[in-house]
Amino acid sequence: MTRTITILGATGSIGASTLDLIRRERGKWRVVALTANCQAEELARLAREFSAEVAVVADEASLPALREALAGSGITSAGGAEALVEAAARPADITLAAIVGCAGLAPTMAAIEQGRTVALANKEALVSAGDVMLAAVRKHGATLLPVDSEHNAIFQCLAGNSYEHVRSITLTASGGPFRDWDAEQLAAATPAQAIKHPNWDMGAKISVDSATMFNKGLELIEAHHLFPVGLEKLRIVVHPQSVVHSMVEYRDGSTLAQLGPSDMRVPIASCLAWPERMETPCAPLDLAALGELTFRAPDEVRFPATRLCRQAAEAGGAVPAVLNAANEVAVAAFLGGQVSFTRIAVMVETMISRYEPAAPASLDDVIAVDAEARVLARELLELA
Amino acid sequence: MTRTITILGATGSIGASTLDLIRRERGKWRVVALTANCQAEELARLAREFSAEVAVVADEASLPALREALAGSGITSAGGAEALVEAAARPADITLAAIVGCAGLAPTMAAIEQGRTVALANKEALVSAGDVMLAAVRKHGATLLPVDSEHNAIFQCLAGNSYEHVRSITLTASGGPFRDWDAEQLAAATPAQAIKHPNWDMGAKISVDSATMFNKGLELIEAHHLFPVGLEKLRIVVHPQSVVHSMVEYRDGSTLAQLGPSDMRVPIASCLAWPERMETPCAPLDLAALGELTFRAPDEVRFPATRLCRQAAEAGGAVPAVLNAANEVAVAAFLGGQVSFTRIAVMVETMISRYEPAAPASLDDVIAVDAEARVLARELLELA
Repeated sequence: MTRTITILGATGSIGASTLDLIRRERGKWRVVALTANCQAEELARLAREFSAEVAVVADEASLPALREALAGSGITSAGGAEALVEAAARPADITLAAIVGCAGLAPTMAAIEQGRTVALANKEALVSAGDVMLAAVRKHGATLLPVDSEHNAIFQCLAGNSYEHVRSITLTASGGPFRDWDAEQLAAATPAQAIKHPNWDMGAKISVDSATMFNKGLELIEAHHLFPVGLEKLRIVVHPQSVVHSMVEYRDGSTLAQLGPSDMRVPIASCLAWPERMETPCAPLDLAALGELTFRAPDEVRFPATRLCRQAAEAGGAVPAVLNAANEVAVAAFLGGQVSFTRIAVMVETMISRYEPAAPASLDDVIAVDAEARVLARELLELA
Repeated sequence: MTRTITILGATGSIGASTLDLIRRERGKWRVVALTANCQAEELARLAREFSAEVAVVADEASLPALREALAGSGITSAGGAEALVEAAARPADITLAAIVGCAGLAPTMAAIEQGRTVALANKEALVSAGDVMLAAVRKHGATLLPVDSEHNAIFQCLAGNSYEHVRSITLTASGGPFRDWDAEQLAAATPAQAIKHPNWDMGAKISVDSATMFNKGLELIEAHHLFPVGLEKLRIVVHPQSVVHSMVEYRDGSTLAQLGPSDMRVPIASCLAWPERMETPCAPLDLAALGELTFRAPDEVRFPATRLCRQAAEAGGAVPAVLNAANEVAVAAFLGGQVSFTRIAVMVETMISRYEPAAPASLDDVIAVDAEARVLARELLELA
């Protein structure tokens, strides 16, 4: 049986991993739409390889290059935000939503509004727009499958069980490259040190989030939306080897954990084949070779991010969106050498205590809050 | 909704753990039959407490004592092997089959033949009579729920998945009290040293099985019957902390593991409530407090038991029954000071290579093979 798929953000790392899996069972898939921000040539190459129906660049200025690269292929090309939403609304059995940032919100929403199965890899969809997005999921009967390795692990561990039987959900955190650093070392941490992640090969922003543990905090907010068991049942444990991706404990005392390699193809494959399982080339887990898995409680004094994110999730409304925007501005400032590593959390804490907009009721509200929070965060930066 | 339950082997440790759980939600359960071997007074006490319909002692000589202890209670009492089978055949939503040894085969089979849900804690049912028992399960549409912590873990990790998607199943083994001993130390190991199990409080026989790793080998044979993924996909890993109870790896690279305390109430609760979850008083898992989980490959030179069991499972037919009987005789001889610790595996290997009866076609055949194997094993012992 052939299945149809649309990939929003086909030229990014999640898009590449997804296409790698589809390439391995080419006959089982038909690609509907592939989208990119501005990488027209790479997008055209992929659209040709996978015989996509349509290829869309979000950046309209890149459309001529896309058109040229697709000339004679028979593949429809389009450009701009509206074309992106139209592509996302096309019928597809599964939509992979992997556009980074607020730019991913509208197309992701378009797929949800069609009642589709959406494999979600866009953090903002849940962190900033969680309430709005989940309301749309319920209204349109869409199915959300989490791509993030932690949330995918939880999703797998919950299979066949009901939320009322959950005693707790534990997100594992590598603890980042500074997990053993003291306060003094953290204050002097450099961008180069922060972007060296021990287990995953990631971009600079997310590497800094891993070092501050904002990444785990944001995941906590996401988990709060995806798995409504109550914030008090969501836990974090530091697990430097990143082999256990997350866990669910049930009221009978059973804990189910999902383990695997640090390879995004595993959770992506889980989404693509769900509720079945597809083959991946990922190496089998060899616990005897690994030898040991270690665990420790997170230190919210040295790493206040998870505390702040829990606070934001508890407050709800616009607070998580403000936190997310403030963190992005602060991380950029850190990467640009403007603020110290430890100032990131301080800036975020200041922002969520000072700026309290009304709860967003629509995606436009979310985008407005996000934009205003960024402006205010930059002002705060200049004052500092 | 009230559910009905029969407990075959109510006065043993599995029976006690089961009744402890039922005691905690007394209103939800109605006890049909409770059985014991010869502990008439304890059985009568439990039958009264739980208002059982019927109480049965396997040992007919204990029936008068049972009758006396139940006088005026209105609870039916009975004794002997046939009465046991009759009690097991009474309608019950779930039957807990926890009679130790070959004595448990006939009543377990009686429950299976009624197409019941049977929570299975009798090792012989799968090790010695696996083919016969599983054929009856299929024929009568019964449902087997494994009580053993490892098999229950696998059962939970398989939920919602199909066998064809399984890449491997890994049973964890504590490695027993001698896991770090060298060949010389093992040759001199005493019964007192063997029965000191690091993680579970168990009887002498099963403690020795844990020390030799025959326990894990027998579990491998059981897993082979319960989860027909093929023997080559069944693995064993030594995990001294016994926190991870077993794992299933899928073809997409996801591994699901079940973790929990060393408390049999967890797997029993999982069976009692399946496919729901019931509350147990077991303490939550605190991985940060545990700190580390370690894993290593089993050493089949120092501990040949798992190799022998794999060989027996591969051979099939009567071989697992012969292995099980030979091991019981050898363990008894070790506990009695007649043979050294390392002779246990040697005796078992000799037995399975010398005695090759026809594959049992019925429970009677299994019982005959078991009895004859014991006679031969004892003869072998005297020759040595």
